[in-house]
Amino acid sequence: MSYTFGPSAMLNAFNDDAEIEGLFTAKADIRAMLDFEYALICAQAQMGIVAQEHADIIKGAIEKFEIDENALAADFKNDGVAPPSLVRQLRANLEENVRPSFHLGVTSQDLIDSSVMMRLRQSVAIVDERLATLDQALDALVARSADGQILQARTRMQNALPISVAEKVGNWKSQIANLKRTKPDYFPVQLGGPEGAARKLGEPYDTLCTSVANALNLDAPSHHWQTDRQPLVAIAVWFSVAASAMGKIAQDILMMVQTDIAEMTLASGGSSSAMAHKKNPVLAEIIVAQARYCHAQMAGLHTASIHENERSGVAWSLEWMLLPAVIITASKSVLNLNELIGGAQFRTP
Amino acid sequence: MSYTFGPSAMLNAFNDDAEIEGLFTAKADIRAMLDFEYALICAQAQMGIVAQEHADIIKGAIEKFEIDENALAADFKNDGVAPPSLVRQLRANLEENVRPSFHLGVTSQDLIDSSVMMRLRQSVAIVDERLATLDQALDALVARSADGQILQARTRMQNALPISVAEKVGNWKSQIANLKRTKPDYFPVQLGGPEGAARKLGEPYDTLCTSVANALNLDAPSHHWQTDRQPLVAIAVWFSVAASAMGKIAQDILMMVQTDIAEMTLASGGSSSAMAHKKNPVLAEIIVAQARYCHAQMAGLHTASIHENERSGVAWSLEWMLLPAVIITASKSVLNLNELIGGAQFRTP
Amino acid sequence: MSYTFGPSAMLNAFNDDAEIEGLFTAKADIRAMLDFEYALICAQAQMGIVAQEHADIIKGAIEKFEIDENALAADFKNDGVAPPSLVRQLRANLEENVRPSFHLGVTSQDLIDSSVMMRLRQSVAIVDERLATLDQALDALVARSADGQILQARTRMQNALPISVAEKVGNWKSQIANLKRTKPDYFPVQLGGPEGAARKLGEPYDTLCTSVANALNLDAPSHHWQTDRQPLVAIAVWFSVAASAMGKIAQDILMMVQTDIAEMTLASGGSSSAMAHKKNPVLAEIIVAQARYCHAQMAGLHTASIHENERSGVAWSLEWMLLPAVIITASKSVLNLNELIGGAQFRTP
Amino acid sequence: MSYTFGPSAMLNAFNDDAEIEGLFTAKADIRAMLDFEYALICAQAQMGIVAQEHADIIKGAIEKFEIDENALAADFKNDGVAPPSLVRQLRANLEENVRPSFHLGVTSQDLIDSSVMMRLRQSVAIVDERLATLDQALDALVARSADGQILQARTRMQNALPISVAEKVGNWKSQIANLKRTKPDYFPVQLGGPEGAARKLGEPYDTLCTSVANALNLDAPSHHWQTDRQPLVAIAVWFSVAASAMGKIAQDILMMVQTDIAEMTLASGGSSSAMAHKKNPVLAEIIVAQARYCHAQMAGLHTASIHENERSGVAWSLEWMLLPAVIITASKSVLNLNELIGGAQFRTP
Repeated sequence: MSYTFGPSAMLNAFNDDAEIEGLFTAKADIRAMLDFEYALICAQAQMGIVAQEHADIIKGAIEKFEIDENALAADFKNDGVAPPSLVRQLRANLEENVRPSFHLGVTSQDLIDSSVMMRLRQSVAIVDERLATLDQALDALVARSADGQILQARTRMQNALPISVAEKVGNWKSQIANLKRTKPDYFPVQLGGPEGAARKLGEPYDTLCTSVANALNLDAPSHHWQTDRQPLVAIAVWFSVAASAMGKIAQDILMMVQTDIAEMTLASGGSSSAMAHKKNPVLAEIIVAQARYCHAQMAGLHTASIHENERSGVAWSLEWMLLPAVIITASKSVLNLNELIGGAQFRTP
Repeated sequence: MSYTFGPSAMLNAFNDDAEIEGLFTAKADIRAMLDFEYALICAQAQMGIVAQEHADIIKGAIEKFEIDENALAADFKNDGVAPPSLVRQLRANLEENVRPSFHLGVTSQDLIDSSVMMRLRQSVAIVDERLATLDQALDALVARSADGQILQARTRMQNALPISVAEKVGNWKSQIANLKRTKPDYFPVQLGGPEGAARKLGEPYDTLCTSVANALNLDAPSHHWQTDRQPLVAIAVWFSVAASAMGKIAQDILMMVQTDIAEMTLASGGSSSAMAHKKNPVLAEIIVAQARYCHAQMAGLHTASIHENERSGVAWSLEWMLLPAVIITASKSVLNLNELIGGAQFRTP
Repeated sequence: MSYTFGPSAMLNAFNDDAEIEGLFTAKADIRAMLDFEYALICAQAQMGIVAQEHADIIKGAIEKFEIDENALAADFKNDGVAPPSLVRQLRANLEENVRPSFHLGVTSQDLIDSSVMMRLRQSVAIVDERLATLDQALDALVARSADGQILQARTRMQNALPISVAEKVGNWKSQIANLKRTKPDYFPVQLGGPEGAARKLGEPYDTLCTSVANALNLDAPSHHWQTDRQPLVAIAVWFSVAASAMGKIAQDILMMVQTDIAEMTLASGGSSSAMAHKKNPVLAEIIVAQARYCHAQMAGLHTASIHENERSGVAWSLEWMLLPAVIITASKSVLNLNELIGGAQFRTP
Repeated sequence: MSYTFGPSAMLNAFNDDAEIEGLFTAKADIRAMLDFEYALICAQAQMGIVAQEHADIIKGAIEKFEIDENALAADFKNDGVAPPSLVRQLRANLEENVRPSFHLGVTSQDLIDSSVMMRLRQSVAIVDERLATLDQALDALVARSADGQILQARTRMQNALPISVAEKVGNWKSQIANLKRTKPDYFPVQLGGPEGAARKLGEPYDTLCTSVANALNLDAPSHHWQTDRQPLVAIAVWFSVAASAMGKIAQDILMMVQTDIAEMTLASGGSSSAMAHKKNPVLAEIIVAQARYCHAQMAGLHTASIHENERSGVAWSLEWMLLPAVIITASKSVLNLNELIGGAQFRTP
């Protein structure tokens, strides 16, 4: 409802994004962490860091592992992270002598950060497709407008000069082109070990890192990024900028559908409890609000990028509170704008 | 889980606050809106604005009203607010001739804003009690410390001079005293009508406003605040400041439990997936992160306080995305600190 | 110029505020710190904490003290605060045996925080007067509008119902009334001593604190606020909220002066380098930008409110970078709006 | 002084950056705008859009043009931008028949945005050099540490495992490497014309755009970015991220110089007005504060990225208030850290 931003909230009709949210569930996170351990043990065996027979046993254990979610939740309340419980539970399925070969040389952060990078890469791919669909919707909007229809360009909220529909929409399409041009392409695996020195991982670091990264479709960094959140911030910024681009287009539409301007009409409009004649551009308003919502989170994400010492519990936890909200909200705003444009029409003069 | 900030997220073990969240559900919002309509019709009947028999029928209809949540959700997606659906549904239970007397002269915003104010008042009362409990926990912490135990005062992260436990904890208690001193005490009812002129409400405005406010345990403003969000921002600031106060105390504890300082011990500590000897001060870290989370939301809430014209859909929707998150997170941080202090102990020299 | 926000910047034609900025110069800060030391020595003599003859010598030294600004600047680069240099310089003018009686029991933070509170109190008084002047300007705007002139109320950027000029402007005046209602009235002196324990100040603390506070026209807190920035944040919030109120009114004006709406005309408008017919509502735009500028600073000020241990160099320095910018920008926005309203006119139908 | 963040402020000993600030003065801005007009007229003549003899006259006029700063300042107060005054003044030096050939087809925003891009490109180059110098300073820090010296790795503020000096500093150097990897390389010229349609510029747009961009050492965008601030935001983010990187390193140093840890010593330390033994790590504190200062500005810069219609006066003005502050503060923080590292030393065990 109005003042609820939770699962039961009606506002979530505008904010829910099942496809993206599915990437940020506990289940998806655990799944990705297991993929990381699988890739790690394969690489360590190949490099002779662990015995092949131990690796085969561990691979088997990972494949048939079912996590005890209650134990995980209980442990999380104490540990503040999931891997200790995950590792304990999986090790319990291993023979005493095999256990040391599992999770060898790595630490919770390697699993957590690699897991989020895998899911951020998928999120970027999904939004990239949504932007392509939106770009086509904008072409269709131009195509269905009257031939040679002229709009009013407005600068500093004053009428300036006439522009064509293609020029107006061209400014919007340019935003999408810039988002395509700057699409994140660096999703580094995390491999730092307990103290970030990666010393226990067994040399050569680059070989192991590249092998694990390739298996997970991630990039191999030249140095771990446990306390250097630049790769993460860069991706979050792209999503926030995407939300801004959607917000700019929605804001333009809000300006054009003002009663006294009416350069555009929308498929639907919210009703008023008191004024029967009202048609409120609710969806466009939400898209602008979603952009501003992301902007606020960015202040926190930049603040969260100062990780003291070799691992920061405070900055890391803060990331977890802010990052998914930005990814989900920005991703949904692209879907929202696509829906809005689908029902929009430039008024025939 | 790490990168999930949703209901299934393990991180919510630190963020969920059933008592406060219960005030921000769709059900609680609808309940408060019905209370508003009930108070309104009573006042309008008393003032002779509507016929007493119509009022009695409407009161009965409100009392036995059960909302169709599916219809509400579907309507919300179109209207962007709940009241139109609520009013439609309830009017459907009224005779044709009685319908105009229901929701007379008011608009969606009157219901929405009054509803949130009712629940903010309850939230403040709950947190006020939690602060009193925390204050006692701090007294108990001093009481169980060794007599005449001396701590090290640290200024600019350098050792300064010795201070007593009472002086150290006194600085924390002072934060609570300041929160008590500035506790919000202005929760105005919203009564502006469709265009904010309150013209349709029937004069005298003050009489009606006071009557409705009294019935709902709210304050009667001298002027509606549909586009003046100062009362709302002031309450949000108080919660954010409370989160800062909790964050300051938790930050002090993080500094004191550093291995090389060890002036304090905590009841429990998170384990590491790689270092058996580690005991991580997870709960203290979360409390600081919760404060910084609230700070980021405040940038958005201040931005959301510019409502253009007589009603802003963008700014209003943005409020709904940010406000509950601040209230819930700040409220929970008080509980978290209370738990942390309960298990804390100054190290006996 | 466009991308310069410094003293030579033309943008400062809209941002400079000589009256308020004068309160935040190095000279004004030193002046207030000397007033603090004067009030302190008087109180300490009265209470018998220092010998009266020493107090008289110190008072004389303070009265004729001229600071060496070059030495102060050089010392500041090392100390990060001004008092050490100020105290060194003044002590050099005192006999060996008198020196210990000067700056007795206090520390840099007592001078710095008390000084800023004195100047914040003055800033609030100035803005309070400006708001009264603005309120009259709004009355004059209504007075010079055509009798019974009707405007269009707009909700969610759609035409709603007609409202009168008095109702429209009444919404603006209500913002000023709320600012008056919430005007800061708590400006505590800082008196904590080196480690915040105020132990060295000589008992009774309350007597000394009250005496110094009264002499400086400040409030006597029950406990020092060296690491509890709530009083400071509350004042900053009020200025930011004032900027929001000015921004809301300016935003309304921007909506009304849109070419296709033209419900209002402004005295002057910016010219375009390419479009002779353009009249840009520059001043109104700046006022909205100033509000959003303040909102961004608030995210930082809330973050700066977590002062670890007994004194935080990081959080304190951050305050110094953000607070004056908020006070000056918000204060100037009131002057800007007053100028804008003075030249505004509702279009006669 | 403490609470002054202006030119006379002593705090500016830590914030002033003459080299970078010199790029953001009115003089530098006007200089860049004249370079833009010069490149434009050359390209337009070459393409036959204007007569060569007119172009030669205009080039001569630009070369010997001296702006009347008083007239500029006065005009700015009315126009809100500099170009109208600049164009008026320069046109006054041209024969009636030549005037139309000057500033042909462009608008204020083309000059303003191109000018800032020129200066942002220079700022990035300067900071890039500073980062290289810092990287060498970090190597020198390692070189002068004791052979095989071991430090304590700290995760979640608890002692973890030993790490070498090279590993500790390696984490810092990695931040610089990431900044080098993501160094902005897209500085597009702005060429959109009055309504952003660039229609008046004469086709082909790409030829003109490329020619002007090459002359100014800028990039030729495929579409103007008058209302698409992505290129600007991306550059601002890089500076903010650089400030975060400096802040992380300074935060680590603050943790290591704590009295009870003392893993590192600094060349100088601030004195206390009350505690003779204190040595405060002032410079390190300022660097962290500068990072957090930049983070707050970013919330505003993201908000400023929604430019409604074909030109936004509000969002554009807000950019001008925030962008230089981020560039200057972040750039200076690199110099500050370089100074700090120069005087830092790992304590010999």
